[in-house]
Amino acid sequence: MKILALGAHPDDIEIFMFGALAAWKAQGANLAFGIVTDGSKGGRLPPDELRRLRRVEAEEAAGLLSVTPRFLDFVDGELVADATLIEALRRVIAEEAPDLILTHAPNDYHGDHRALSDAVRIAVSFHAPVVWPDTMHGAGFVPTHYIDITAHFDLKVEAIREHKTQDPERFVEQVRALASLRAAQANGLPGGAAEAYRFEPSFPFVDIRDLLPPAPPVRGPRQHLLS
Amino acid sequence: MKILALGAHPDDIEIFMFGALAAWKAQGANLAFGIVTDGSKGGRLPPDELRRLRRVEAEEAAGLLSVTPRFLDFVDGELVADATLIEALRRVIAEEAPDLILTHAPNDYHGDHRALSDAVRIAVSFHAPVVWPDTMHGAGFVPTHYIDITAHFDLKVEAIREHKTQDPERFVEQVRALASLRAAQANGLPGGAAEAYRFEPSFPFVDIRDLLPPAPPVRGPRQHLLS
Amino acid sequence: MKILALGAHPDDIEIFMFGALAAWKAQGANLAFGIVTDGSKGGRLPPDELRRLRRVEAEEAAGLLSVTPRFLDFVDGELVADATLIEALRRVIAEEAPDLILTHAPNDYHGDHRALSDAVRIAVSFHAPVVWPDTMHGAGFVPTHYIDITAHFDLKVEAIREHKTQDPERFVEQVRALASLRAAQANGLPGGAAEAYRFEPSFPFVDIRDLLPPAPPVRGPRQHLLS
Amino acid sequence: MKILALGAHPDDIEIFMFGALAAWKAQGANLAFGIVTDGSKGGRLPPDELRRLRRVEAEEAAGLLSVTPRFLDFVDGELVADATLIEALRRVIAEEAPDLILTHAPNDYHGDHRALSDAVRIAVSFHAPVVWPDTMHGAGFVPTHYIDITAHFDLKVEAIREHKTQDPERFVEQVRALASLRAAQANGLPGGAAEAYRFEPSFPFVDIRDLLPPAPPVRGPRQHLLS
Amino acid sequence: MKILALGAHPDDIEIFMFGALAAWKAQGANLAFGIVTDGSKGGRLPPDELRRLRRVEAEEAAGLLSVTPRFLDFVDGELVADATLIEALRRVIAEEAPDLILTHAPNDYHGDHRALSDAVRIAVSFHAPVVWPDTMHGAGFVPTHYIDITAHFDLKVEAIREHKTQDPERFVEQVRALASLRAAQANGLPGGAAEAYRFEPSFPFVDIRDLLPPAPPVRGPRQHLLS
Amino acid sequence: MKILALGAHPDDIEIFMFGALAAWKAQGANLAFGIVTDGSKGGRLPPDELRRLRRVEAEEAAGLLSVTPRFLDFVDGELVADATLIEALRRVIAEEAPDLILTHAPNDYHGDHRALSDAVRIAVSFHAPVVWPDTMHGAGFVPTHYIDITAHFDLKVEAIREHKTQDPERFVEQVRALASLRAAQANGLPGGAAEAYRFEPSFPFVDIRDLLPPAPPVRGPRQHLLS
Repeated sequence: MKILALGAHPDDIEIFMFGALAAWKAQGANLAFGIVTDGSKGGRLPPDELRRLRRVEAEEAAGLLSVTPRFLDFVDGELVADATLIEALRRVIAEEAPDLILTHAPNDYHGDHRALSDAVRIAVSFHAPVVWPDTMHGAGFVPTHYIDITAHFDLKVEAIREHKTQDPERFVEQVRALASLRAAQANGLPGGAAEAYRFEPSFPFVDIRDLLPPAPPVRGPRQHLLS
Repeated sequence: MKILALGAHPDDIEIFMFGALAAWKAQGANLAFGIVTDGSKGGRLPPDELRRLRRVEAEEAAGLLSVTPRFLDFVDGELVADATLIEALRRVIAEEAPDLILTHAPNDYHGDHRALSDAVRIAVSFHAPVVWPDTMHGAGFVPTHYIDITAHFDLKVEAIREHKTQDPERFVEQVRALASLRAAQANGLPGGAAEAYRFEPSFPFVDIRDLLPPAPPVRGPRQHLLS
Repeated sequence: MKILALGAHPDDIEIFMFGALAAWKAQGANLAFGIVTDGSKGGRLPPDELRRLRRVEAEEAAGLLSVTPRFLDFVDGELVADATLIEALRRVIAEEAPDLILTHAPNDYHGDHRALSDAVRIAVSFHAPVVWPDTMHGAGFVPTHYIDITAHFDLKVEAIREHKTQDPERFVEQVRALASLRAAQANGLPGGAAEAYRFEPSFPFVDIRDLLPPAPPVRGPRQHLLS
Repeated sequence: MKILALGAHPDDIEIFMFGALAAWKAQGANLAFGIVTDGSKGGRLPPDELRRLRRVEAEEAAGLLSVTPRFLDFVDGELVADATLIEALRRVIAEEAPDLILTHAPNDYHGDHRALSDAVRIAVSFHAPVVWPDTMHGAGFVPTHYIDITAHFDLKVEAIREHKTQDPERFVEQVRALASLRAAQANGLPGGAAEAYRFEPSFPFVDIRDLLPPAPPVRGPRQHLLS
Repeated sequence: MKILALGAHPDDIEIFMFGALAAWKAQGANLAFGIVTDGSKGGRLPPDELRRLRRVEAEEAAGLLSVTPRFLDFVDGELVADATLIEALRRVIAEEAPDLILTHAPNDYHGDHRALSDAVRIAVSFHAPVVWPDTMHGAGFVPTHYIDITAHFDLKVEAIREHKTQDPERFVEQVRALASLRAAQANGLPGGAAEAYRFEPSFPFVDIRDLLPPAPPVRGPRQHLLS
Repeated sequence: MKILALGAHPDDIEIFMFGALAAWKAQGANLAFGIVTDGSKGGRLPPDELRRLRRVEAEEAAGLLSVTPRFLDFVDGELVADATLIEALRRVIAEEAPDLILTHAPNDYHGDHRALSDAVRIAVSFHAPVVWPDTMHGAGFVPTHYIDITAHFDLKVEAIREHKTQDPERFVEQVRALASLRAAQANGLPGGAAEAYRFEPSFPFVDIRDLLPPAPPVRGPRQHLLS
């Protein structure tokens, strides 16, 4: 099985999807990462330096899952779902031939995230199911699937911390809070962590759960805190 | 694992949910059936005779999965989600302690189906996730999960045919068409069969896929008819 | 064709559905009205007097369409969708055998309207499609169908004015504004009037448009004000 | 009345909308077909040959309704809702001046279908209502209208079979199953066929039912299989 | 201004709505609490003892806002939205004459919460807008409004801790995590806390924001962590 | 506080959003207007003359709120959400640095309105919340917020009347009817006027009510016509 993660900026895969990707990896899946913009606006350093540094950071982070990311090198902050972007994505999808694609939700907070999501919707055609990770802090997001990342949370934190130019501790705190809340929604034990995802069916993909790593264990009335 | 199927009339479990139940059985799950009304209005025979005959039919059909159904004996055609029904359902749920409940969707075609669905929503509290099977012919239904019943479809047909008072061939044709369409939505091979279900999350059940029998195999671009 | 209108209070059929009913009548349909509560709380007069006066008003209004309304005589302001109400509605529906039922939307402003809507949902079973008229002032309402009542608006006003105990001019102004807005949404000419309705499909009723009186004429770009 | 059907590929109008178009034709409506891509990726033949052959197939199929299709000749598999496509569609719409447009749903299975749907949404402005046919196998589709195509189903099959390069029998089986299921949702008699459509209102088009061919007959409780 | 909070069990107002109530209190609003069941199932103590102890706990907690709660004394775990409950709620609403009502969402985790929500929907009629607090852990909840409870969070914790029979620390942790996440969704500073609410308009209440305590401050791009 | 209104044509800000803008102005907010197309297709005059005349009209209307509008000068009737438009909007947003943006809903009647809405969704990124005014006649629109424009309605009419080339009285009548209906939905007194808006949360903007001018006063049961 091949999973393709498409992130708008060099740290997006780590922040939004890394737990699930580690879970897939643990199952033996092949992973591919596409980083769509050059990250040249993510900080106060000169754009060229940011581009260069963030590329290395992304490589380090992806390396934690033994992945060599692809860089599409669109300009940070200027993404538009036009023919150029769609064509670039079509090429990546054709070459990677993924069984499933992860990319940002169309209502996520950043314009680049929305543009990428729109472009993937066209580029993917019927070649793979597209699954969206939680938005930033889960704002405006209605999940359909949860993935247990308890065993992979520390690695996710490590991956985020590779992005040294990004003041990564703020994101570590953020994903810790969100992963813990998503686990709690599934009645998880203290210390549990989960990522939430959304999938909307269209032919030929109507139920893709058998492609996903396990959900948090279902904990019914006899086990949970409420009884 | 214990699955509790709640049908409004003596043949509803067979028509709407039997394929998935057979799949659970094949996985080693324990099954329990609750038949809520007496079926006394389902035909031209006198109510008492219908009640008696249909009880036997339901026992025969359930017997195909080695289940002895419970009969709640509410009057057919008069179901209301009131304290009496809810209390009866609470008792069944407490005694069976199911890990998951199947019952009709709240917008299914028959008033008894809707009333049962409403009552289960209250009676179940947080004791088990509730999953709704397809409505009649799938009208007005938006599935969230599909279950592969290809290997169990013949048994489902056999179960429906036990309901001899119900002119069962009309239902056989109906479920054959719907199961085949649901499998086709998942890009199934000819001869495939699937049942579609809907689950709406509420704490502590937000992703119950690990409780479900397998979905139809995901068949991507390299295998399907469209490439 | 038989249309059954079910209103919670003695003036609800007039305020919410009378235009469409007049349109059906003009097509030759048979009409039946069921008035569910006694209207005994709708004013400052003593309940018994209100009940008596409003019954006459309802008869006068219904008489404009040659209908003799049925009175179910539940207590105004105390409606609950329980077995008693559902059974009463089942009896009306069985006796009238309507091809289509009009009743309040489940999110309309008055508790009695909501309770009646809930009860009809169970009582109707699969015996007829249920169509909801606009809520009061259209608040929170998403229409699926529009009915042209231009030719019947004056009669609707006349019917509302029969409800002399209700200070009817306030309702005349209200329905005039709403009918005019609903017609404008269909790009109607000045003076047009429409009522908006909502239908949600469930087997065996998935598209009931051939039961409805005509929509406002579709007025495309060559005719409308915008070109 | 003029109906404009816009299909992404040379066989899409036949597969997705031909039944309704035949019904319109039978009512005396004028039809226009726009085929947006050249179909050059739909098979193993060389693109140029496919383009040429499929054009002839589309002409043969359209000819069954006495229509000469327009070919917009965008490259198959590369459609993007950009200014070029939108402008091309604006021109077609201006020249045909349709009263109603049929085109693919925005969540249909193929990227070209989605891009075309997006482009029509902009190009059409307020010039005509846009109605979407069922997606492939109805996956992820919530209909608002049904059209009875029982009398036209054989012609639809004939039209599909004109697409000899497309291994058409697979589509014949597919549309037979879907049309039969859609008819069954309306409680149709065995042998009935229907196409399902979705319309979302925006000014000046809020209820376009009077532009549509008849729905399947509404078959209430006294006629249907369940009584 | 009078706010009426209706909780199913003796600690529900504290867990789900206490922050907002404290904010209203700080604005000078009058508060009323209705506790609908006797809490006799919430623990391992004998029901009578639980009922007695929890009543005192609820009084202590409400006392933190100088409120004397009303006890409706329905049996814990057996709530049904029937005429008895609806009538009891009608009486409370008539006596308190609130400007706004808080009660559980209809899809919250506990059957009693759902039944209470259903009953309030009928009982309230058009007498006050009804606003639902977050479900347990926010599962399945889509907020429409947020209320800043940063200044009141400690009091909320204190109120929860009054419920000594309930092992309150588990709830303290839970509400801390949820309040912190809801504040983070509004881009709050570390240490911020918010409660999320949902309001669905129906006449005469379509925008009730001027009745609510302030939302978390809107923090745009120049202030937030992402710039 | 800075509010940026973005209208597709020279009179759109006046017709769709002027009441709220006047209310903001009255609160001391700063306003900026961006007029995206040149209006050269809005009438029978030659395009160049229309462009020139409408520019003056827009300046006159904006002048009523002491605003000098920005003209983006895209061609009327040809708007597409492509890189050119998105980049132009990014520049306006960067220069104005608004706290909130008003622009058309994505399902409004005119293709240019939809394209502008789509483009703003990308261009805005996380820089400001975007709020949509009512569609034309409110067709297909589900409001989340209402703004009281009673005190500003006459100025809105005056602003519309500045658009002399547009036969403005038709729009005056239209907005009068819609503003009056929206006020009535809030149980407004006769003579009240309101504009309805829709906001969909995405990080960091989840509840923006504290940025909005007041809603129509909430008028409960003791004041309204129904009691």
